[in-house]
Amino acid sequence: MNNINNDTICALATGGGISAIALIRISGKETINIVNKIFSKDLSKKETHTVHFGNIIDKKNIIDEVVVTLFHKDQSFTGEETIEISCHGSKYIQKKILELLINNGVRMADPGEYTMRAFQNGKLDLSQAESIADLIEAESEAAHKTAIQHLRGGFSKKLKLLRQKLIDFASLIELELDFSEEDVEFADRNQLNNLLDELKKEISALINSFKIGNVIKNGIPVAILGAPNVGKSTLLNTLLNEDKAIVSDIAGTTRDSIEDEIIIKGYNFRFIDTAGIRKTNDKIENLGIDRTISHAKKSSIIIYLLDASENIENQINNINKLDKEDQDKVIRVINKIDLNNLKSKIDDCIFISAKENIGIEELKNKIFDYTNINALDNNNTIVTNQRHYEQLKNTLNELEIVIEGLNNGLSSDLLAINIKQSLFHLGLITGEVSTDDLLSNIFGRFCIGK
Amino acid sequence: MNNINNDTICALATGGGISAIALIRISGKETINIVNKIFSKDLSKKETHTVHFGNIIDKKNIIDEVVVTLFHKDQSFTGEETIEISCHGSKYIQKKILELLINNGVRMADPGEYTMRAFQNGKLDLSQAESIADLIEAESEAAHKTAIQHLRGGFSKKLKLLRQKLIDFASLIELELDFSEEDVEFADRNQLNNLLDELKKEISALINSFKIGNVIKNGIPVAILGAPNVGKSTLLNTLLNEDKAIVSDIAGTTRDSIEDEIIIKGYNFRFIDTAGIRKTNDKIENLGIDRTISHAKKSSIIIYLLDASENIENQINNINKLDKEDQDKVIRVINKIDLNNLKSKIDDCIFISAKENIGIEELKNKIFDYTNINALDNNNTIVTNQRHYEQLKNTLNELEIVIEGLNNGLSSDLLAINIKQSLFHLGLITGEVSTDDLLSNIFGRFCIGK
Repeated sequence: MNNINNDTICALATGGGISAIALIRISGKETINIVNKIFSKDLSKKETHTVHFGNIIDKKNIIDEVVVTLFHKDQSFTGEETIEISCHGSKYIQKKILELLINNGVRMADPGEYTMRAFQNGKLDLSQAESIADLIEAESEAAHKTAIQHLRGGFSKKLKLLRQKLIDFASLIELELDFSEEDVEFADRNQLNNLLDELKKEISALINSFKIGNVIKNGIPVAILGAPNVGKSTLLNTLLNEDKAIVSDIAGTTRDSIEDEIIIKGYNFRFIDTAGIRKTNDKIENLGIDRTISHAKKSSIIIYLLDASENIENQINNINKLDKEDQDKVIRVINKIDLNNLKSKIDDCIFISAKENIGIEELKNKIFDYTNINALDNNNTIVTNQRHYEQLKNTLNELEIVIEGLNNGLSSDLLAINIKQSLFHLGLITGEVSTDDLLSNIFGRFCIGK
Repeated sequence: MNNINNDTICALATGGGISAIALIRISGKETINIVNKIFSKDLSKKETHTVHFGNIIDKKNIIDEVVVTLFHKDQSFTGEETIEISCHGSKYIQKKILELLINNGVRMADPGEYTMRAFQNGKLDLSQAESIADLIEAESEAAHKTAIQHLRGGFSKKLKLLRQKLIDFASLIELELDFSEEDVEFADRNQLNNLLDELKKEISALINSFKIGNVIKNGIPVAILGAPNVGKSTLLNTLLNEDKAIVSDIAGTTRDSIEDEIIIKGYNFRFIDTAGIRKTNDKIENLGIDRTISHAKKSSIIIYLLDASENIENQINNINKLDKEDQDKVIRVINKIDLNNLKSKIDDCIFISAKENIGIEELKNKIFDYTNINALDNNNTIVTNQRHYEQLKNTLNELEIVIEGLNNGLSSDLLAINIKQSLFHLGLITGEVSTDDLLSNIFGRFCIGK
C-alpha cells in the first residue's frame, strides 16, 4: 500500500476481457500533463466534466480512437485531477494504453487505491469507502440496499450523532464530578442517565443489527435435511434452476451462477454443504447423525424433507431428535405428493413435489417468512461489516466501564480515559482514527481499478 | 436484426462481471427523455459532451450514484442522441439499471446494433464498421494495426479511388465507342489502357494482400514435426510459457491465454494440432506419414525437430520425404544439444535445447524471418476480411470480362452491364450497396453493446 499520493496512478476500471468498451482511469496531479503526451488534443485548458474525442498515439502510430473524460481536482471521485479513457475493449489496446501511461511516469494503482485516495482526500469516510466494495459485490436487493445506504452516509451520520452524544456525555460528567464536592449541581442527573441510556441503546441496536446485516451480506444459511432418497438433491436443483431462469431474463447480465444460492424477495439464501446433498442421488448416502447435527447448527433455516410415500411418523420422530434450538429452525416439507397425497391428513407442513415442481412457490414464501426480517421495509441502519461490529462492541465495552466507574464514584480524569477509548473505537469505524495497517487491510481487499 | 431505428436501445458496453465500473449505453431519439425519468438531474438542456454526477432512482430508491455522459444527435458514435451511464460494476446494479430502462420503453440492443446504426446514419462505411469487430478482437500488433487502419478509413479511401477510376474508365469507354464509328478519337487509347492496367494492378494487389491479411488476423499456422520423443511437446511449452510470462507483465491485463498461440514481433503464430503434440510425451505416439503430411500442408511454417542424441542423417532423410513445396516451409531445428552438441558438424540448422531454454530466441527470429512479411513497416492497405476478399475477386472478374469484351469490340451498352457489376461488387464492400441479409450477417457476429 502506497500512502504517498504524490504520484499519478492508472488502472483498468472495467472487466479486463474483450468487450465493446473498456475504461482506464488515471488519477493524480500529473494526470493532464501525462495524458497530453499520448492524446491528440491538448486538455490543459478544458473544463471539468467534459468529454473529448481523439486518438491515443504512440510514436505517430494511432493506438485507438477514444473518448476522454476530464475531472478537475476536487471535482472527481478521488478528489484529484482525474481522466477516464474510454477505449475499444480489445485486450491489446487496453494493455498498450496502460503501457504507454506507465512509460510516461504513471504507476499501476494498488487494489482499492482510488477509493483510498478518496478517503484520504476527505471525499468519503472510511465506512463509506468500505461500503463501495460491498456495493460492487452485492447480489441481492437487500445487500445492495444496505450497501448504498452506507455509501450515501446513512451509517456515518448515525455514528456522528453517537460521537456527539459521547462528547456531550463527557462534558456533563466533567461538570458533575468537578463541582460535586462543592455541592453545586450543574448537571442534571436525569439528563446524564438519559444520555447514557440512549447511547447504550443505540449502540446495542447497531450491534444487534449485525445479525441481520451479516446474513444480508453473506446470505442466509439454509440446510436441507432428510432421509436418503427423500429428494433433497431434486429439491435443491428445482430451487436453483428456477432462480437461474429468472436471473437470465435480461440478456448480457446472466449471473456467473454462484452455485447454490437463490434470491427470495430480495434476500440471498445460501444452501450449505450441498456437495453432500448432490451426492445423495448416488444412493450410497449415509448421512450420520453427527453431520446432520453439524448442518443444523450451521444453518438459520432447516428444510426437513419427509417422504410422502414412506412412513411419516417415523420420519417426524427423527426431527424430534434434533436439539430444541435446531428444531425451532425446521420447516417440515412433505415431498413426493405426486406419489401419495397426504394433504388432508397432516397439519403444519408444506406439501410439495420437487420433481413435478408443485408447491415450490409456497415453500419459498415459507422460507422467507422464517427469516423474520423486514429490513427492506424500514430505514434502520444495519451494520453489515464485521470490523464495524467489532469496534461497536469495543465502544460499548468502554462505555460500560465508564458506567461502572461512575457508579463507583471514580474521578472524571479516570473516567476520561475510557471515554476517550470509546471515542477511539468509534473513530476507527469512520476513519477519524486510522493506521497504515488498517488501511492496507481494508483497501487491499478491493479489486484493482476501484 | 431490427432495421427500424425509431426505437431507443440499451446494452452493457463493458464486460458484464464484477468490476470497479460498468458502462451502459443508450442510443435513440428518446434517450434523454427516458433517462430523465430515472436520473436525479434534468439533462434536457445540457450541452453535448458533458458529464453529470447524480443518482439512478427507482420509485424513490437510489439504485446507484453514477456519472452520466451526454452526446447530442449527430455528435455521437451512432449519430443518434446517446447517453452513457457509468455505474458501479455490481451485477445487481447493472441488471437493475437495464431493467429500469426497459421498463421505461428502451429495448435491449441486438449484437452490433450500435455500429449498424452508426453505419446507417453515415458515420462509418460498412468496411469501417466491420473493422471495429476486428479491432476489438485483435491480439497482436499487426492485427491491431490493420484493423485501426481500416477503421480510420485507409481501406475505404483506397476503394473510393478505385471506384472513381472505374467510373472514369466507364466514361472513357463510352466516349471511345460511341464515337469510334465517326472516326473521332475523343479518348486517348493510351489513357484507357493505363487506367485499365492501374485498376487491374491495384485490385490484384488488394486481392494478393489477403494472403498476408488473413494470417495477420487469424495467426500464421506453424507445425512442429519430428520423430517420437524428439521433444516437440517440450518445445511447444517452452515457446508458450515464455510468451505468457511477457504478456502477464502488466497487472490486470493477463491474456485469457488462447492456448498455443505466440506473438513474435507483433505477429500471431498459431501452432496447429498441438493436441497431438502434447500427447507425444506419453511415448505411445505413432504419428503416421498421412498425418505428418496433413500437418505440413496446413501450415505456413514447419519446425522440423531433430534429436541431437540420435542418428541425424536418418532423421534428415525423413524431411526429404515431404513434398517439395512443404520442404520449402521447413526450419530444421536440432534439439537436445545439452546431450550432444553438434553445432560444429551440421550447417543450416538452428541448435536448441527446449528443456534448458537454449537457442529459443534464435529460433523465434528464424520463424519470423520465414514469414517474409513486413506489413508492419509500410502503410500498404491489407485486406483482412474474407468478405472483402471475395468481393474484390468478383470485381476483378467483371473487369476482366469488360477487358475481353473491349478487345472483342463489344458495344458500350453491353460493356456497361459488367462495369456496373464491378461497381456493384465494390459497393458491397463499403456498403454503398447493402441488403438486410448482408447487414444481419455482418452485425450479428458483433458482441452485444457494440
